Amino acid sequence: MVYFDVASSAPLHPVARQALQASLDEGWADPARLYREGRRARMLLDASREAAAEAVGCRPDELTFTPSGTHAVHSGIAGALAGRRRAGRHLVVSAVEHSSVLHAAAAHEAGGGTVTEVAVERSGAVAPEAYAAVLRGDTALACLQSANHEVGVVQPVAEVAEACRTAGVPLLVDAAQSLGWEAVAGDWSLLAASAHKWGGPAGVGLLAVRKGVRFASQGPADERESGRAAGFENIPGIVAAAASLRAVRAEAAREAARLRELVDRIRARVPQLVPDVEVVGDPVRRLPHLVTFSCLYVEGETLLHELDRAGFSVSSGSSCTSSTLTPSHVLRAMGVLSEGNVRVSLPMGAAEADVERFLEVLPGVVAGVREQLGAPGPGPLATPEGAGTLVVDALGRRCPIPVIELAKVIGDVPVGGTVRVLADDEAARLDIPAWCEMRGQEYVGEEPADRGAAYVVRRLS
Amino acid sequence: MVYFDVASSAPLHPVARQALQASLDEGWADPARLYREGRRARMLLDASREAAAEAVGCRPDELTFTPSGTHAVHSGIAGALAGRRRAGRHLVVSAVEHSSVLHAAAAHEAGGGTVTEVAVERSGAVAPEAYAAVLRGDTALACLQSANHEVGVVQPVAEVAEACRTAGVPLLVDAAQSLGWEAVAGDWSLLAASAHKWGGPAGVGLLAVRKGVRFASQGPADERESGRAAGFENIPGIVAAAASLRAVRAEAAREAARLRELVDRIRARVPQLVPDVEVVGDPVRRLPHLVTFSCLYVEGETLLHELDRAGFSVSSGSSCTSSTLTPSHVLRAMGVLSEGNVRVSLPMGAAEADVERFLEVLPGVVAGVREQLGAPGPGPLATPEGAGTLVVDALGRRCPIPVIELAKVIGDVPVGGTVRVLADDEAARLDIPAWCEMRGQEYVGEEPADRGAAYVVRRLS
Repeated sequence: MVYFDVASSAPLHPVARQALQASLDEGWADPARLYREGRRARMLLDASREAAAEAVGCRPDELTFTPSGTHAVHSGIAGALAGRRRAGRHLVVSAVEHSSVLHAAAAHEAGGGTVTEVAVERSGAVAPEAYAAVLRGDTALACLQSANHEVGVVQPVAEVAEACRTAGVPLLVDAAQSLGWEAVAGDWSLLAASAHKWGGPAGVGLLAVRKGVRFASQGPADERESGRAAGFENIPGIVAAAASLRAVRAEAAREAARLRELVDRIRARVPQLVPDVEVVGDPVRRLPHLVTFSCLYVEGETLLHELDRAGFSVSSGSSCTSSTLTPSHVLRAMGVLSEGNVRVSLPMGAAEADVERFLEVLPGVVAGVREQLGAPGPGPLATPEGAGTLVVDALGRRCPIPVIELAKVIGDVPVGGTVRVLADDEAARLDIPAWCEMRGQEYVGEEPADRGAAYVVRRLS
Repeated sequence: MVYFDVASSAPLHPVARQALQASLDEGWADPARLYREGRRARMLLDASREAAAEAVGCRPDELTFTPSGTHAVHSGIAGALAGRRRAGRHLVVSAVEHSSVLHAAAAHEAGGGTVTEVAVERSGAVAPEAYAAVLRGDTALACLQSANHEVGVVQPVAEVAEACRTAGVPLLVDAAQSLGWEAVAGDWSLLAASAHKWGGPAGVGLLAVRKGVRFASQGPADERESGRAAGFENIPGIVAAAASLRAVRAEAAREAARLRELVDRIRARVPQLVPDVEVVGDPVRRLPHLVTFSCLYVEGETLLHELDRAGFSVSSGSSCTSSTLTPSHVLRAMGVLSEGNVRVSLPMGAAEADVERFLEVLPGVVAGVREQLGAPGPGPLATPEGAGTLVVDALGRRCPIPVIELAKVIGDVPVGGTVRVLADDEAARLDIPAWCEMRGQEYVGEEPADRGAAYVVRRLS
């Protein structure tokens, strides 16, 4: 099995395993106790904090260990918002943050706060000026990821941090996807990360809060981790997290260069090998190991299943692979195709031969899925006479069927004619405009309908 | 080093270690993913949930894994209170709950809710009738520990659950101290526990919520663990927790009988070996492995330090060993002596020889600490002539000095005379009455003073 989904979770790094096993005997006692076992546990905890703080680029007393990256994000946002309550209740996030940030923002809104989502460019990146423009006098906190988890684009954190600094607003950086590669540059105020993303164990996150940042921990009081992370410390996990962070950093520069080249290869060759593919995200300002593309006329879940059968583990932001049946909010915010979406994220040490084999296998797998769905071929369209309008009823049909039906009939209307696609799958709202862009047809717009919506497309060629 | 503080944290059980190591290779992937690594992780998670649910005595779909026992308590209380918001905002807890429960109660109160603390008897147990009496029409939730973490008394959970059932109030049981020994009997509604207390790893707690209990998870939304525990699942930890719970349960009956006998030995012999000791808690209705006693005229931190030097790791509820400088709320609620407090909690497999050696070492250690502090000996008091009142100024002196000063001068007043002790250490409020009870003197009461308080004691013999 070839695992190309390290952006979800990385296999345990050998150094993490070693450190974990070594500290099971030394790190189980309560570090708050004064006896020998407690003092040993405390020493491990302190040493891990120093090592992790060095890798993060902060002081040890600015760093707390949390039970997960999600907890770090939730606690960091809640604590910073509460600490800045007097400044106001306005929260700024980018539209492509991890769900943990967006859920914290939704909770803030439900509690009476206001939230501004900064739109992103088609690459997935925010524009620093656009971000700066929404900062206000009552902005309590701004959040920006260091790099996007679905498409790998690296965000302009240093520029946004500078704008935040000027506006007097603290910036929280979700560094989950990038901290294993490098420290986050720029003058951030809070930083969150998750160990299992860099090859550390599950159950450990990091929250850094710079001295001077107003912060008021929320939830019931607890004396552990400076009051910022309740519950008994998971010291073996923390030791393993800190040790593996150092270890991956030692390999990072070399490995980044190698994986960057492999990802470039995927980015270049997938569109050559597979028709009707859109590779998304920024080709240059990106994480070294991650690439995402979407395939027209492909159902994401079937594609993942077939790739799994062929021996490859990847993930997808297609709606039909998620429990919510809505396409990835990241792809939606970027305005790119969501159907047949595949994210490939290479683990450190990924073999070139495995990447080559993936590129060999992919075209056949995509073709097979398209054939199952009766997707139209890439040939030229017919040119019927006269003006005309056609209605396609795809109500109750799930992605990518509405797009496939559209593609099947577009040749049945003359150039200048329109097709109205009735659909109630959320993904259609994203995928029909994306199809138009890829196919050079005109997306006229969406009209209300009894059920779902009518998406109107005009044939241009 | 002999570790007698398993009530704080247990060393990792060999089965937990095995299970953890085995699942590091199988349990690192995201269990929400559909590919092979994800499915394997999901299988481990599901199997662990079934095993843990069986040990808890609930259905697997009633059980969620949390990052710690503290998280289970915090989430359980917040979720149950929110779910019963329409019933009211009254919360009932016993006065001797773990700090995680009391801190959650304080947070509820800070948020506008009301809290009733049910007093305990001198044994540390609540009286079921007293508990039932405070349940009201607007009581949203009641909390009761299965057994106390400091003095080991087993609470009447089944009786209180019955009273709650009658009143239509859900009962949350904090089973942290007892779940390794046995399932909690009685008709509870919610249950919380912590794996590192039974020999599982740190970083894993349990929260069971019975079907039919109204529950509304608080905090930002998260799809994991039925929305009740945010963040990526720590599957190796969870597997180790479930496996070790089964393993300790298999040994529990035999080990409980053996440790019960060792604790009986400590309970009987400490008062014979050490003068001026109060063994606290219930001698019968108690955890098998835990005993607590307090030594007059002894400073807790020095005692722990000397026991550590002698090779024994135990804990203490004395004020001077905690960062807050207030004596344990449990000892305070029980109205027992807090100075020179020692909690001994034996791990499974504790050697009889170690217990014997502890009993050999203890008298000399206590005597040494008392000598350092200049504590009075146990001899008969002098009998001076005439009535009289004496004032002892112990302002600014920390426990156990105020009590020692009192003991030194009580012989200087005649029978019927009084001693007024001026003290500003919080522990004096608890320890001076306790001293009177142990010494057969009369505690007249507390009077306001410029600084601290004046504690008035009348000599009776």
